[in-house]
Formats: sequence, C-alpha cells, structure tokens
Amino acid sequence: MDAAEFRRRGREMVDYVADYLENIEQRPVYPDVEPGYLRSLIPTEAPLEPDNYDDIIKDVERIIMPGVTHWQSPYFFAYFPAASSYPAMLADMLCGAIGCIGFSWAASPACTELETVMLDWLGKMLKLPEHFIAGTHGHGGGVIQSTASEATLMSLLAARCKAVRRVQETNPERLEAEVLSKLVAYSSEQAHSSVERASLIGGVMMRKVPTDNTYAVGGGMLKKMLEEDRAAGLIPFYFCATLGTTSSCAFDHITELGPICNEENMWMHIDAAYAGSAFICPEFRPLLNGIEFADSFNFNPHKWLLINFDCSTMWVKKRQDIIGAFKVEPLYLKHENQESGRHWQIPLGRRFRSLKMWFVFRLYGIEGLQAHIRKQVVLAKEFESLVRADKRFEICAEVVMGLVCFRLKGSNELNQLLLKRITESRTIHLVPCQLSGLFVLRFAVCSRVTDSGHVQHAWRQITQLSCELLQSDH
Amino acid sequence: MDAAEFRRRGREMVDYVADYLENIEQRPVYPDVEPGYLRSLIPTEAPLEPDNYDDIIKDVERIIMPGVTHWQSPYFFAYFPAASSYPAMLADMLCGAIGCIGFSWAASPACTELETVMLDWLGKMLKLPEHFIAGTHGHGGGVIQSTASEATLMSLLAARCKAVRRVQETNPERLEAEVLSKLVAYSSEQAHSSVERASLIGGVMMRKVPTDNTYAVGGGMLKKMLEEDRAAGLIPFYFCATLGTTSSCAFDHITELGPICNEENMWMHIDAAYAGSAFICPEFRPLLNGIEFADSFNFNPHKWLLINFDCSTMWVKKRQDIIGAFKVEPLYLKHENQESGRHWQIPLGRRFRSLKMWFVFRLYGIEGLQAHIRKQVVLAKEFESLVRADKRFEICAEVVMGLVCFRLKGSNELNQLLLKRITESRTIHLVPCQLSGLFVLRFAVCSRVTDSGHVQHAWRQITQLSCELLQSDH
Repeated sequence: MDAAEFRRRGREMVDYVADYLENIEQRPVYPDVEPGYLRSLIPTEAPLEPDNYDDIIKDVERIIMPGVTHWQSPYFFAYFPAASSYPAMLADMLCGAIGCIGFSWAASPACTELETVMLDWLGKMLKLPEHFIAGTHGHGGGVIQSTASEATLMSLLAARCKAVRRVQETNPERLEAEVLSKLVAYSSEQAHSSVERASLIGGVMMRKVPTDNTYAVGGGMLKKMLEEDRAAGLIPFYFCATLGTTSSCAFDHITELGPICNEENMWMHIDAAYAGSAFICPEFRPLLNGIEFADSFNFNPHKWLLINFDCSTMWVKKRQDIIGAFKVEPLYLKHENQESGRHWQIPLGRRFRSLKMWFVFRLYGIEGLQAHIRKQVVLAKEFESLVRADKRFEICAEVVMGLVCFRLKGSNELNQLLLKRITESRTIHLVPCQLSGLFVLRFAVCSRVTDSGHVQHAWRQITQLSCELLQSDH
Repeated sequence: MDAAEFRRRGREMVDYVADYLENIEQRPVYPDVEPGYLRSLIPTEAPLEPDNYDDIIKDVERIIMPGVTHWQSPYFFAYFPAASSYPAMLADMLCGAIGCIGFSWAASPACTELETVMLDWLGKMLKLPEHFIAGTHGHGGGVIQSTASEATLMSLLAARCKAVRRVQETNPERLEAEVLSKLVAYSSEQAHSSVERASLIGGVMMRKVPTDNTYAVGGGMLKKMLEEDRAAGLIPFYFCATLGTTSSCAFDHITELGPICNEENMWMHIDAAYAGSAFICPEFRPLLNGIEFADSFNFNPHKWLLINFDCSTMWVKKRQDIIGAFKVEPLYLKHENQESGRHWQIPLGRRFRSLKMWFVFRLYGIEGLQAHIRKQVVLAKEFESLVRADKRFEICAEVVMGLVCFRLKGSNELNQLLLKRITESRTIHLVPCQLSGLFVLRFAVCSRVTDSGHVQHAWRQITQLSCELLQSDH
C-alpha cells in the first residue's frame, strides 16, 4: 500500500470509525459467540499473496464485530471505563506515523520532553505536592506506564531495592536473600489483584490488611499488623493504598496511613487507577489529601480522562529511587543527556503516548474534562436514586463517583441468576463483585456518550428481568 | 469534538501522515535541539478552556517535529528498525475506535481469539515446532507482549516458579527464600540489557556466558559454567539465548545449547527480538534450528515485520507454565471460559493489537513480507561491500541480516570522533556498540523506504567526514 492508497483507505477508515461510534447503540453490547467461534471463520494460515483490502473490511464486520464486547457503547456498565475520545484517536494516528521508540532522550527528544511536561500539567491539575513536579529542577516527576499493574510493580521493586540497601547499610553481614525473605508488603484486602501479583513477581511476602465497614483501610488496622510483624522479626517495607477500589470504589484513609508509613520507613504507593481522574475536580480533591506522605502515585487517564488506552500516569517523589533500582545501560543506549532517559519502567521501548495527553488536554480544556467527570458522577447518582426507590433492591456501598454497587435483597444465588439474565439479554453489560461475602452487581458509568436515557433504559431492563425472576420459581 | 468534526479532522490527519511519510527525507533525521528545549515552547499549565485545533496542528510543526528523531526516515540507520506500514496504521485506527481492553475472553472475545489465531499464523510462517501452536488442542501457544523485555521477564519468572516448586518437591524442608538465593540464570555477555534487568527484577543471580570470536555462545562455555556452579551448590534454572544480538546480530549456537538446557532441567528462552522476523524466509530459517529444545521464544514483529510498535510475539511450549505462575483471579474477572484469558503478561489491560497483524499479513501476504526482509538484507550487503572496498575501514562482525558493524582502522577515539561528526551532520543517524573492547559503528537498515540511493548517500557522507577527520589533526 502506497501513500496514495493510504490517503483513500485512511479516509474510509476515519468514516468507518465515526460510523461505528455514532451507531454503536444499535449493536448488542455483549457478543453472542461461543469460545473458539473465530477460528472456524478464518483460514488456518496467512495468505502467500496479498488479499483484497475490501475483503478485509468486509471481514471486520463478518468476523471481528460479532465477537466484540463494545466497551464504548452507552449500554456498557461493566468493569471501569476504557477512555475514548476523538482528540486522543487523532493524536494516536500522529503517534503511529512518527513511529519513534522513545527509550532515551536521544531516541526522540520530543517524546521524552513532552511526556515530562504533560505529567507536570496533569500533576498541577491534580494539585499534587510540589515534590512530584519535575519542573526544571525537581527531584521527582512523572512518567507514563502502560498500566497500573506496571506502576505498582515498579514502585514495589524500587521500595524493595531501597529496603535491602538500608538494612545492609546498618547490618552489612546480612545477605540479600535473607533480607528479602523478611520483607513484608501490605495492601488492602480490597486492593486490585495486580497488587498481590506484584508481590509474587517481586518475590516478597504480601499481607492483606482487613478493611472497615466502608471497605477502606484505616491506620489502626495497619499499625496492629506492623507491630505483630516487627515482633516476629519481619521487615515491613511497602504499603499500597487504594483510592477507589475496583470492587466498590472505596478510599483507604491515607491521612492516617501516610504518617504511619513515613514513621516506619515504609514506601507508600497510592493506586488510584480509576478514581484519580476525578481529583481534577475541586470537590473530589479532598479524597487525595494525604498524598503528601506518598512516595509514588498512579492513576489511569486511560480509564476516565478521555485518553485512549494505554496511558497510566505515575509520579515519584524521588526519581533516583526508581531509576537507581534497575539501571543497566549498554553503549548503544548511552547519550550525554543521560538523566532524561526513561528507566522508570519494565519495557525499554515506548510509544509517543504523551501526544494523546497534549491533544486531549488542549481540545477539552480542564473545564471540559471536569464536565466529563461530573456528568458521569451525576448519572451514577441518578442510578443510585432509582435503586434506592425500589424496596426490592439495596445499595451495597457508598456511591462516591461513577460506580454503583447494588443487589436484590435476597440470596447470592438470586443475584447470580439476575446477572446471568442481564448478560444473556445482551442489551446492557455489567460484572459482579463480592462485598462482605455477598454477590453484588456493579453498575459503572463508562461510555463518554452515556446519558440519562441510557441509565433509565438500563434500570428498566434490570427491573423487568428482576420481576420475571422474582415471579418465577427460579 | 463530535463525529462530524472527527470526520473532517481525521481526513486532514490522514493527509498529514501521508505527507509526513512521503516527504520525510527532507527533514534532518536527527534533531538539532538541546535538552529541555520543549519546556520553554509550551505553557506551564493545561488550558482551562479548549484551544483551537488548527493551533495544535501548527504546534506539531513548531514544537514537536523539531525535536523528533525521525525513525522512519530512510537516512535512519540507528538501533534497529521500528516497523511502520500503512496497513498497520489503518488497523491501529480501528483498534482505537473499538477501544476494548482485552484482559479476559469475555472482555472482548474477538480480541483474545484473533490474537491466538494470528500467533498460530505467524508461528506457522516461522515453521515453529507443533508444540508452540495453540491450534484447537495444543498445550502451547502464543501471546502478544509489549516488548521483548517483558517476554524475557515473563519467561524468567515462570522458570523461577517452576524451579522453586521442583526443588521443594524433593526437598520440602527448603524454604523458598533459600532456594531463590541459589538459583542462577545465564545469558550471553552480548545479551540485551533487558535480560540482566529481568534477573534484577526477579531477584535471582545472573551469570554472563563469554562468547566466541563471532560474539556467540557455544555449548562448551555454558557447560563449564554449569559444572562450576553446581559444584558450588547453586541451582542453574534458566538460560536466555539470543538470536541476533543487539550489538552485532550474532547468533548463539542453540543446537548445542538446547540439549544442555534440556538435560540440566533448565528453561531455555530464545530472544530473537530483531532477527526473528527473517525466519519467515527459508534461507534464514536454519538459524532457528534448535528451537525444538526451547521452552519459550520471542521476537518483535514491531521491529522488522512492518507491524507498528507495540507487537512483541512470544510462544511458550506449555501455556500452564506461564499462566500457573501468576494467576490471581478476583470475581470481577471471573468468567466461565477461564483458560482463554490472558494471564501471560505483566499488564492486565491490553489493546486489540492482533488487528495490526491481521491487516499486515493479509495486505502484504507472506511473499510481500519476505520481499521486505530480503530487500533490507541486500542493502546491508551493499553497504558491507562499500566498506570492504575501502582499505581505511574494517568490518567487525559477519553481516548476516540488516546490520553492518564497521569502523575506521585505528583508535577508538578516532571512531568516537567520526560518530560525533556523523551525528552532528544530522543527515544520517547511527549509534555505536562495543565489540572486543573496540568502539564500533552500527549501520542498521531500518526504514521501509530505504533504498540503494540512501545507502550510497550514507556511505558518501561517512567517507567524506572520515576524509576530513583523517586529514585534520583531530
């Protein structure tokens, strides 16, 4: 395909994309396919000679679309949002064309520098403490990771490295392996599965801190565990706090937890994967109070800030803590401007992802982004009111942002059956969670285009299916 | 921005992309900016209200482009190629529009299923052993990772988990921490920096195996190290072989190394990040002989197979080895079709990257992809001939694929100075490596549009700068 054909096909694709998104409501949000459906529709080997382009586009509708869960549909209320906006898509086209791999400053200075400045912009939007802003002289700063999982892992690894060094400084006779076997990381029992996974990868123990009746960790419970563990000869070194848990959007009490971590010389990482975007609104910013105690902080603009996946933003108080942990630098990567490189992450290669941030911030403006957050919270509150007005249902956790946890009063079995019927209806899509042993339905406002009509429609669907269920024997 | 405006701006962006790539030769391949150049060109904070779109596009030329190292320029001969093609860019637009996060089968069945089938297609193109092909009943299969760094890390972690379990099965009294402290991984002293980094992350020792005079590891040297280490009570568990090293594109002797790893119960991972793409050509496939001994294999179609970053393909012999190592599954991710999920990687979220493979394979056909590989190898051979015909220069490693390692006969200082002049000329871009203590220049054929004229031009530049250098006192 040459440039001329790309111009033609590119225009067609732009229209296909616009058509897809404009008419997405008409597609069933959840696909009606069985595992393995695709293999039978596709040849077993790649073609020797080129296929026809038009056939490929026909196959997108014939083979791909029937198996897509439409995350951008306004009837998608599952998991958390996957951000999507036209400005981000335009920036991604530009990113693909430039096609640079920004693993060092010299590999494409604009790529490293725009990222640093965009992380400063975003950090200021969140009113992060000064030490997280790179500015021109700061010791901290931000970096784009692919996902929150990677940010958590990097913070845990940096903390591990720092803890081992500290122990060995005062006790040079202690071997690294022995120290590692005594290190303990902590997180909420409600923390995302990737936090536990980070400890498995890092080869360190992780203890799960029980939560209070709002599914949040407070200072008391952590302190108690730390005392027990210290008494047993263990070395607490890391706590991952969650702001906006995946199950119920609960907020750990970081104003209590932060001082404890600081006193105990533990690294505090804050995972605000979903909720972080909302902190650009003054009314939600108080939930981030306590950030001043944190060593690192992460959230996903690719969830709720209209920047297409992947764009997970992470800030660290001291760049050297992250960079120093894993720097391995061969000659082919050396360059005089070393410190601007990006040794803050697992992958070496990286796309020019900050272009998406730049386009989105400039084309929405801070007020436009705030409006997006507020609209989705209002919709969640609207859904909450509908649930509360129906005596057959109960709300299972405080609705703070765009997530509503609810269930039919009654058995877990009943709620499992309700969810099964909802999923099979394919008109709306939800996933469950477990809270205090109860099977709970999660209603997350996800799509950029979801409005009150879609929420009302979803509620009608849910109540209708519930009626059928409650009237039958199930 | 609504759909109507996206249609207009999208068309403009398609043209911008086509213009950029059609006229890329006219831009200096390496930017003339100082570290920190960008910050002064850009406001210190995001705008409150939306900026004008046309201003943003003007700023792309004013702020971004002057700081871009143009990886797609035919005068870019640095590092290794960053793949780029129009079909991949079209597929990426579609990927952005669908905007699904494929972390499980249910999260978007087409995303998981197309990936599995595309990895089978590619595995067959490479004539991988049957056990790497998922098919409908296989125990192995492929997955897309973001980068080779992640693939190496995943293989090392899976091997670590397997080794600890094996030791503890026969010696249940041995503690995990103690076993971990005895584990040793191995790789070539020429292996990529990410391999050493994987061992740092995994918290295990890594020993570097010396190479022969072709910069490759043979069986004898590994065997010797294993005997020493076993005698010292250590537990060898992992060897990362490289096919096509970053410095000089050397090939470890995997037909010798594979049987040793198998006998010693060590995991053999093969990192063929750059060279792997060439194995779709029958004339290069013999270099992959020995793959039948490997537990995992990885290469980057985003380097040399015309699929834009990121697309790093990894195959494992037994899916369970990877999946079993780190599966942590909360309720909100559970689905009846568990095994089709993707627990093969560090991040949980993932884009619909297999669309790029599908578009590229179908629009180039296997023959088109082979032609691309062969063309670049021919160009490297052409450059090699030019170097060999000039008595002032020497070739420093066998030219097997698209990389030529060369230098001026003489001191390292002289060659460092030559590279400095080349970089400052900004008309071509190269990076160095170190081979046997010598400072060596790497000439990698990178851009899809590089042809003989560009290679000849590059050589004229190099010889002219060399003449000036040799005539002066330097």
